[in-house]
Amino acid sequence: MSAHKNIYIGMLGCGVVGSQVAALLEKNNAELSTRAGAKLILKKIAVRDIKAAREGINQSLFTTDAQSVIDDSEIDIIIEVMGGIDPARELILAAIKNGKSVITANKALLALHGADLFTAADNKGVDLYYEAAVAGAIPIIRPMRESLVGDQITRVMGIVNGTTNYILTKMDEEGRAFADVLKEAQSLGYAEADPTADVEGIDAASKAAIIAGLAFHSRVSVDDVYREGISSITADDVAVAKTMNHVIKLLAIAELTSDDRISVRVHPTLIPRSHPLAAVRNAFNAVFVEAKSAGQLMFYGPGAGGAPTASAILGDVVAVARHRVSDSVGPRESDYADRAIAPIGDTKTQFLIRLNVADKPGVLAAIAQVFAKEGVSIQTVRQSGRGNDAELIVVSHGATEEALSSTVSALSKMDIVTKVESVLRVLGSQS
Amino acid sequence: MSAHKNIYIGMLGCGVVGSQVAALLEKNNAELSTRAGAKLILKKIAVRDIKAAREGINQSLFTTDAQSVIDDSEIDIIIEVMGGIDPARELILAAIKNGKSVITANKALLALHGADLFTAADNKGVDLYYEAAVAGAIPIIRPMRESLVGDQITRVMGIVNGTTNYILTKMDEEGRAFADVLKEAQSLGYAEADPTADVEGIDAASKAAIIAGLAFHSRVSVDDVYREGISSITADDVAVAKTMNHVIKLLAIAELTSDDRISVRVHPTLIPRSHPLAAVRNAFNAVFVEAKSAGQLMFYGPGAGGAPTASAILGDVVAVARHRVSDSVGPRESDYADRAIAPIGDTKTQFLIRLNVADKPGVLAAIAQVFAKEGVSIQTVRQSGRGNDAELIVVSHGATEEALSSTVSALSKMDIVTKVESVLRVLGSQS
Ligand SMILES: NC(=O)c1ccc[n+]([C@@H]2O[C@H](COP(=O)([O-])OP(=O)(O)OC[C@H]3O[C@@H](n4cnc5c(N)ncnc54)[C@H](OP(=O)(O)O)[C@@H]3O)[C@@H](O)[C@H]2O)c1
Ligand SMILES: NC(=O)c1ccc[n+]([C@@H]2O[C@H](COP(=O)([O-])OP(=O)(O)OC[C@H]3O[C@@H](n4cnc5c(N)ncnc54)[C@H](OP(=O)(O)O)[C@@H]3O)[C@@H](O)[C@H]2O)c1
Repeated sequence: MSAHKNIYIGMLGCGVVGSQVAALLEKNNAELSTRAGAKLILKKIAVRDIKAAREGINQSLFTTDAQSVIDDSEIDIIIEVMGGIDPARELILAAIKNGKSVITANKALLALHGADLFTAADNKGVDLYYEAAVAGAIPIIRPMRESLVGDQITRVMGIVNGTTNYILTKMDEEGRAFADVLKEAQSLGYAEADPTADVEGIDAASKAAIIAGLAFHSRVSVDDVYREGISSITADDVAVAKTMNHVIKLLAIAELTSDDRISVRVHPTLIPRSHPLAAVRNAFNAVFVEAKSAGQLMFYGPGAGGAPTASAILGDVVAVARHRVSDSVGPRESDYADRAIAPIGDTKTQFLIRLNVADKPGVLAAIAQVFAKEGVSIQTVRQSGRGNDAELIVVSHGATEEALSSTVSALSKMDIVTKVESVLRVLGSQS
Repeated sequence: MSAHKNIYIGMLGCGVVGSQVAALLEKNNAELSTRAGAKLILKKIAVRDIKAAREGINQSLFTTDAQSVIDDSEIDIIIEVMGGIDPARELILAAIKNGKSVITANKALLALHGADLFTAADNKGVDLYYEAAVAGAIPIIRPMRESLVGDQITRVMGIVNGTTNYILTKMDEEGRAFADVLKEAQSLGYAEADPTADVEGIDAASKAAIIAGLAFHSRVSVDDVYREGISSITADDVAVAKTMNHVIKLLAIAELTSDDRISVRVHPTLIPRSHPLAAVRNAFNAVFVEAKSAGQLMFYGPGAGGAPTASAILGDVVAVARHRVSDSVGPRESDYADRAIAPIGDTKTQFLIRLNVADKPGVLAAIAQVFAKEGVSIQTVRQSGRGNDAELIVVSHGATEEALSSTVSALSKMDIVTKVESVLRVLGSQS
């Protein structure tokens, strides 16, 4: 052990998350320092508005000059909780260049520029840790990276966005419409005034990219992630799922295809109620991991919030500080597998298709023929309603998105099909 | 980094778990070695019967002389998967004395002699890792130890025994009796010929002790754990739970009492169906953790089996090997808090009491009076059946076990009470 007595920490940002990090670093300092093997000292905090009231945090720590935090030669560790791409990216790169280890909660940045950041950290021999970036307080990065290091992950499915899970839970449990629940979520503070990043799956896509890269030892960017949000899910979709004993969840899915490529996507998915992910309600998150030896694992907890996210950051602080004390670094981010991304057109899933049809003899035969012609095999068909309200609910076996698209376009051209109500994916086997 | 090129491993035992460890070490050697930073070489394996067929493992590795594995000066890491207390304990202590790091899956041993073993490892400056000892493949030790190190755990509740969870699941879903399901579980290999260690909660108690020690930074032995098994749970108990929208699970509970002592116990518990633990079916395990900042977390997966358990062991192998390569050790087992154990008599829980009563006016008043006299306050009472079949189902508010015992003994002395059918705990608040 080197003679490190103090580990100095600089923080970028002091909002929802940062203020909790500062509070916990103060409150649990003795214990954290014992665990780290050195006294942890929060030395500087960069913010935009130095005058804002930030209760319980020593006013003299604040500066608006973020660069001065990065350039402080005494500081060992930078915690980045300012968010956004710029200037967070430049600041983290400069911190690494200055030999500091970095802890960040910034999923958007990692999903866009992770490869560059990890390369920089690796070249410099410093740590870049990010447990808080995916699913908040839930330990998921460390288990995937360290506990499962002797195993091979084959699929990860996550409920990684609390806002959309809250909305879908209410739609499921109370039979309400999307717009109605969204408004309520906004008034309760569960959804932002501009809910786009959440409801359109943009936030989940960032997390999917991070998870896919980690699980499959490759570099995956948010641009590789196929994405559909939940804004077009109707109360009828939810009700139909219910009659099938399924529930609709927005899943971030990263899986290995049979030809060893990575399929990574975010979309609403019908899952059986007996599946562990089905029981994840309201704003809770969960990540379901399938590995060759370990089997099926699930990690569940609050995916956001200041205190939970701060808890995850402090776990990283102790780990990184221990490395500083012993002059070592953690395992480097691994991208040795360098797998290709499978385009969504190649991805096989099961589909549920709801069709408004004319209620007369021969309809089913005609429709089944269209599926057959496109090479999409049918698992179940169910008719509900009669006359003008007749609806056919078709669940396919595993089919590629390509085959599905041409099936849907052929169906919508049929006279007997009044409308293709919706097309949803169903969790099932890949073939 | 030191000049370590090879890390030699010795293994004690090669049964269900050990054979999978050997197979995975061979199959994934390149990847594991890359991650460890040194070539991992399995050098010797101690068994009792050297002649048994062990497919795919190089016959020349085996020896019946376990001491020769411990004394091999080239060996860096010992994996103990032989089970039992003796000679496992002496062998691990000798290995530590010889400067080797140890990885063990032996919950029974850790729950009995953990304190001595951890002290020995700490004094010698070697690692003693045990991810596989609690809940098999589920990463729970590392998350509690490392991810939550910056937080304060207040309660842990685990379904940590697959056999009993399988039995309770079948009783719940199929309305069957304990003895009937046990027999089926035995024929399917889910329960052993002598099921005592599982159904009486002995195995769960070992895990409860390990979890409690880890969560509350204290030394907790299996002798500190209050224990009740599931063999007296009846189909009627399960049915009553069902009418209340609850399910009965065997929980290992470790919690901090209001006066900062540790309450640690294993017993059947009614939990609401909306609780994440309620969805844990069949032989799956799950550990639910409540922490001050992180909130409620749950870790779910297979709790046993050769391959899952081996996966957990290999995660430890890579971590420990990395420490060897960098001449460091992981965080030491912490027992600084040194908290006292609260006796079960002091532990407050909610109870459900089923009473066979005479169906006549005034019964409820008389019974309520007994509860009041003993200071146990009632949350709900429900009568089911009439005449000779009349049953009262009383759920109390939080009460100590002591108050409860005297209430039950007073009730059973009443003329109008034909029988106290059962007394079960209900998951709820402590007061
Ligand atoms: N909130 C959560 O639950 C959660 C969960 C997981 C991950 N995260 C991630 O954590 C990060 C922070 O989130 P948050 O919710 O804490 O954000 P926030 O409340 O908006 O706080 C951002 C902080 O950064 C400071 N800041 C922003 N731009 C700056 C600049 N150019 N220079 C100096 N300081 C600047 C702000 O200063 P002022 O105070 O002066 O405005 C503020 O203190 C984001 O990457 C987010 O994605 C958040
Ligand atoms: N099985 C699981 O799913 C599981 C899950 C979590 C933890 N664990 C723990 O893992 C450990 C091993 O379990 P297991 O199921 O693999 O047991 P197992 O199948 O009974 O294997 C035990 C192995 O140890 C060897 N052995 C026993 N006593 C020995 C002695 N005195 N000297 C030399 N070798 C000896 C046996 O040799 P022979 O082959 O010659 O008989 C056998 O290879 C236990 O502590 C258990 O609690 C098991």
